[in-house]
Amino acid sequence: MASGVGEGEVVSNKQVIFKDYVVGFPTESHMYITTSSVSLKLPQGSDGVLVKNLYLSCDPYMRIRMRKMEPSPFSSAPYASFAPGSPLIGYGVAKVLDSGHPDFKKGDLVWGITRWEEYSLITKPESLFKINHTDVPLSYYTGILGMPGMTAYAGFYKVCSPKKGEYVFVSAASGAVGQLVGQFAKLMGCYVVGSAGSKEKVDLLKNKLGFDDAFNYKEEPDLAAALKRCFPEGIDIYFENVGGKMLDAVLLNMRLHGRIAVCGMISQYNLDQPEGVGNLMTIIYKRVQITGFSVVDYYPEYSKFLDLVLPHIREGKITYIEDIANGLESSPAALIGLFTGRNVGKQVVAVARE
Amino acid sequence: MASGVGEGEVVSNKQVIFKDYVVGFPTESHMYITTSSVSLKLPQGSDGVLVKNLYLSCDPYMRIRMRKMEPSPFSSAPYASFAPGSPLIGYGVAKVLDSGHPDFKKGDLVWGITRWEEYSLITKPESLFKINHTDVPLSYYTGILGMPGMTAYAGFYKVCSPKKGEYVFVSAASGAVGQLVGQFAKLMGCYVVGSAGSKEKVDLLKNKLGFDDAFNYKEEPDLAAALKRCFPEGIDIYFENVGGKMLDAVLLNMRLHGRIAVCGMISQYNLDQPEGVGNLMTIIYKRVQITGFSVVDYYPEYSKFLDLVLPHIREGKITYIEDIANGLESSPAALIGLFTGRNVGKQVVAVARE
Repeated sequence: MASGVGEGEVVSNKQVIFKDYVVGFPTESHMYITTSSVSLKLPQGSDGVLVKNLYLSCDPYMRIRMRKMEPSPFSSAPYASFAPGSPLIGYGVAKVLDSGHPDFKKGDLVWGITRWEEYSLITKPESLFKINHTDVPLSYYTGILGMPGMTAYAGFYKVCSPKKGEYVFVSAASGAVGQLVGQFAKLMGCYVVGSAGSKEKVDLLKNKLGFDDAFNYKEEPDLAAALKRCFPEGIDIYFENVGGKMLDAVLLNMRLHGRIAVCGMISQYNLDQPEGVGNLMTIIYKRVQITGFSVVDYYPEYSKFLDLVLPHIREGKITYIEDIANGLESSPAALIGLFTGRNVGKQVVAVARE
Repeated sequence: MASGVGEGEVVSNKQVIFKDYVVGFPTESHMYITTSSVSLKLPQGSDGVLVKNLYLSCDPYMRIRMRKMEPSPFSSAPYASFAPGSPLIGYGVAKVLDSGHPDFKKGDLVWGITRWEEYSLITKPESLFKINHTDVPLSYYTGILGMPGMTAYAGFYKVCSPKKGEYVFVSAASGAVGQLVGQFAKLMGCYVVGSAGSKEKVDLLKNKLGFDDAFNYKEEPDLAAALKRCFPEGIDIYFENVGGKMLDAVLLNMRLHGRIAVCGMISQYNLDQPEGVGNLMTIIYKRVQITGFSVVDYYPEYSKFLDLVLPHIREGKITYIEDIANGLESSPAALIGLFTGRNVGKQVVAVARE
């Protein structure tokens, strides 16, 4: 057994290391790039896979994993803290170089949880999804065809039970998830308004992504009034990506039996103390349902999701805006940029083109 | 048609009048007692019913109707403002003295929405429920067998989808609704803890109502710590009657896929500005569902509810604590007492004993 261990070619492996827990706003200095080495052959007896990372996904929820969280029965897996001194962990698209697992073979393309480095040894590859459709951009598997796409699908169709003609509001609407929720809602025959943080994004929402209306939340002195202007009849469905003041304003504008799918609260991730939300009595007055959800509960429906969304992509009925940074070195800045809204569309890092 | 109109005996009719909209804490001076007169015969051609009110129900939600609310497409019926100068409106038990409606006849006992006065002309009696079981106290139809009972049933069984062995927390637990939620939860095989505002109430919860544990929230400097002490494994189901700081503390203690049924938020009703709730990120971390509900959506299940709860009452498996004030004159103080926690159990006003 000892012979043959690590006999493969050894190559250098650039990595993005998580330096230490973050309080307040994350900066590039909370990460650093280093180079280690890796054997391109799996350790003998491993039932994992060795992959070359092609695209890495920058996702807002990663900020949550930068917090120091005491391990407890309450700290559930998707939000467990990153380990200081180790590479960041996140979604990505990768190519299998060596496999000890019967479900994967050399040359397979996969997406799922990997690490922020050039090559990764994934010891539990069961959570990876095999990529079977390559007539669409591979990077889409970090976005519309990956976790954010499934998140939009689950949050909109499954959590919100939308009906034709309903009034839908999406915050962070040009982001990886929001831009899809808006398009799903239009396909469903809903009236859809989005908020975003720049004129450029608002223009994209209205002119490229098919939203009925959109506003720049940074230019609205009164968010509740902005929503009332956009939704004189009130809001049936709110797809929540933002939290804080936006949630408070939305609550004042909810309709009877309105539904709020809570996907994220990016406005709160960098605060030491979360903002208080006052208008919760609306939950009673309007019999509102607020549902937090995690995409991981919906992954069993992934192939059904692909059946829905792939034809729409191929027929041009759904578009997807990506913001692709080049090279692993660019990934810390790309990740940090999510929290200033620098990205336009889904933020991806291209580590290697196959 | 003109002859015979109003030919019945005319009697005096004591009424509790809503004086004017309330800001802050309501007091007895926001109501006054007056005496008008009423004919004990319906106007000819009326398809309403004329009733003698026997019991009136003091319910926290009535505070909401004391606020000035601008009429808008958003102001839904159950919370529309009371009209200054008119009697308060609320649930009660009454006896039909005259009926122009085919569903009701003289002598019928009913419960439902009536007015705070001795005799009421109810023009739309369709919303009244006929009382068919009189082997239980009639006053129960303001509580366990009326709106609060249906509220507990709907909120616990329908909204929370409870499972055996789950951890259930009930605030305002000795109140009209809470005491029943706790007993339903015990019948379901859950572990149940309640909070209340006095030692007497805590003792009742533990020793008479069968709660596994209970605490006096007024004596807990740290509500989150109190809940952690009572629920080391966390809370699966929170039946929300209180809002504000209690909700914030509960959120920190919710378990994965926890459910919160929002029945009321009595701690907020008398505030000009609601308290901000900060711990809403839990909704994401723990994939929590928060559902506001109104009993009116569940009234179609009333007979099913009776089938469940009547046998439990008759067999002594469910008890119900009432706090009965005597005479219409006592009703303003009884209503105000809800907001200081003066009542022990369901607050009823006995207007007349048949």
